[in-house]
Amino acid sequence: MRFIIQRDHLVQSVQDVMKAVTSRTTIPILTGIKMVVSDEGVTLTGSDSDVSIESFIPKEEDDKEIVDIKQTGAIVLQAKFFSEMVKKLPSDTVEIEVQNHLQTVIRSGNSEFNLIGLDADEYPHLPQVEEENIFKIPTDLLKAMIRQTSFAVSTSETRPILTGVNWKIENNELNCIATDSHRLALRKAKVEIDSAAHYNVVIPGKSLNELSKILADNNELIDIVITENQILFKAKHLLFFSRLLEGNYPDTSRLIPTESKTDVVLQTKEFLQAIDRASLLAREGRNNVVKLSTLEDKIVEISSNTPEVGKVVEEIKALSVEGEELKISFSAKYMMDALKALEGTEIKVSFTGAMRPFIIQPINDDSILQLILPVRTY
Amino acid sequence: MRFIIQRDHLVQSVQDVMKAVTSRTTIPILTGIKMVVSDEGVTLTGSDSDVSIESFIPKEEDDKEIVDIKQTGAIVLQAKFFSEMVKKLPSDTVEIEVQNHLQTVIRSGNSEFNLIGLDADEYPHLPQVEEENIFKIPTDLLKAMIRQTSFAVSTSETRPILTGVNWKIENNELNCIATDSHRLALRKAKVEIDSAAHYNVVIPGKSLNELSKILADNNELIDIVITENQILFKAKHLLFFSRLLEGNYPDTSRLIPTESKTDVVLQTKEFLQAIDRASLLAREGRNNVVKLSTLEDKIVEISSNTPEVGKVVEEIKALSVEGEELKISFSAKYMMDALKALEGTEIKVSFTGAMRPFIIQPINDDSILQLILPVRTY
Repeated sequence: MRFIIQRDHLVQSVQDVMKAVTSRTTIPILTGIKMVVSDEGVTLTGSDSDVSIESFIPKEEDDKEIVDIKQTGAIVLQAKFFSEMVKKLPSDTVEIEVQNHLQTVIRSGNSEFNLIGLDADEYPHLPQVEEENIFKIPTDLLKAMIRQTSFAVSTSETRPILTGVNWKIENNELNCIATDSHRLALRKAKVEIDSAAHYNVVIPGKSLNELSKILADNNELIDIVITENQILFKAKHLLFFSRLLEGNYPDTSRLIPTESKTDVVLQTKEFLQAIDRASLLAREGRNNVVKLSTLEDKIVEISSNTPEVGKVVEEIKALSVEGEELKISFSAKYMMDALKALEGTEIKVSFTGAMRPFIIQPINDDSILQLILPVRTY
Repeated sequence: MRFIIQRDHLVQSVQDVMKAVTSRTTIPILTGIKMVVSDEGVTLTGSDSDVSIESFIPKEEDDKEIVDIKQTGAIVLQAKFFSEMVKKLPSDTVEIEVQNHLQTVIRSGNSEFNLIGLDADEYPHLPQVEEENIFKIPTDLLKAMIRQTSFAVSTSETRPILTGVNWKIENNELNCIATDSHRLALRKAKVEIDSAAHYNVVIPGKSLNELSKILADNNELIDIVITENQILFKAKHLLFFSRLLEGNYPDTSRLIPTESKTDVVLQTKEFLQAIDRASLLAREGRNNVVKLSTLEDKIVEISSNTPEVGKVVEEIKALSVEGEELKISFSAKYMMDALKALEGTEIKVSFTGAMRPFIIQPINDDSILQLILPVRTY
């Protein structure tokens, strides 16, 4: 194996596949990056066996040579060293050569590294995914859907299924739902798919977050393939595989109230900042709970009281308040997470009493919904 | 106590005095910030008993009102809450009022905080420093001297005196010396002082680092006062007190070789980057040691070899190599620290054999010197 490559392209690809590599693996070869050189280009692979990422660097792009392939072959190199090294190499080009089976020489400018590689044949195979039913989403929409739901997954392993995001596809619509049983995030969007196809799978929240990090910010279409236990995302020169979580996701549709008793419309940013300040003292208390009360004249009061430390009272002017008077307590953190996930400068909070879950939505947009369970404080 | 203040000024002052406040103190009142309101302005104080910082906010500056003082007084407020809160307040002005002895109300826009303060009379007094012999250094020079020496102090408490930087003042010259007994950093500069005055004190490295962080980047003169067990730095509206370390600092002058057998002149940046790469693999080994060899044609080779992982060879072209051939091993970390501390694009390394300490200096500048002890590898 021997090739000369533009350093920038190598650095970018290594950085992408590194997102799947962990040092805490029980399979030693997975601490490495697999590098396969064919006549078409160089393919890098990183994996922690839950998530696998494959990045392809073509020989040429836009009529410019990126890789000069002298001899094909394959090797696995220690990911930690290799990724730090490529970032620091002195020249714009890098030569990589495998000599005597596993001895790998990396040259750039007046630097020469000799690394002892691992046998690429021993690297686990990527899952085989049959591309039966591909559907497509623009990259920026996919990233938004991940950002708006995955924060709400459970971080506790007591109910492992809740550490994932539930993706349901039916009638050309994708529904993403995440809940940790104290709050819920829902986002839906139209997708391009064979209208008869339907899926109901659970993707680890961690996988979606890693995927989101390596996807570019553009509106190119991503191909998505779902099989029984894997999901594959295909972007340009990039394959991202994640295993799916096993088990049935709870039916969350009954949780979401369909009518409300008090509706409050607020400026998102002003509301977020008031909650943030009101919770400053509450954070020291054990629960980070704030209280919301509707007052006269469309005034909404946010307050918290931590006896040993002090209390905070915030008043904000709502754009509208309709329905019954209300006093309700909830987690400031959940509310801030929800408000940060929503788009739009104005939001509507719909309550159905102090003891019932309430929902937050941008005004005039029902493609996204955040739900929070109140806290009983009396 | 009651006053209305421009929020920006309050935020900046709180941030400065916070540098001295630690939550890990055995004196509970030191987790607070003391606030004293006089007819002239507001004085904030933070302290961990080793370092104390006092910041003064004048009533007016450049004919603009900063503080509107309604009633003088004093209070101590929990530093952690108070500092987070002032940063997040909604309006450009903040009103602070102490009611009923310790009950403190902070108002800004439609936010109202009620904090329970502590009695300012119980806050420890700052050290009394008699201003007998003031000397002056420009702020930027002081910051450079700190940056170029304090990194070399010992982090181990086995010889506490080495955790400080030795400041010697004699013949209108300030000498700053730090060593952890494996390397040494020295920086000297002329200072404005009564020529008969001489001092020999040891300032905790930690104190100097904190001082450096809160000083502005300008060339205004800082007043410095040294007493038996305290040093006081006086900048505009800012007092910074640090205790001194007790004990005698070792005489380091004999350590520094006065002649050399091999002199190598190198481009600082190229040398630093080569050391950085050569040490990538060595970091995994137990000692992070690299080897330097002079070759023919002014080539200097930097190499490292970690048997299980691989080896690296770097070649750089020196600007000049004079004297005996040399192979020497040393800590890559110490060399990188030293090179980062030096100013100038070209540096000279002067060796006196593979087993003797060597020195690194900018060419044509003997106000700064870095010394490293080699590592025996044979």
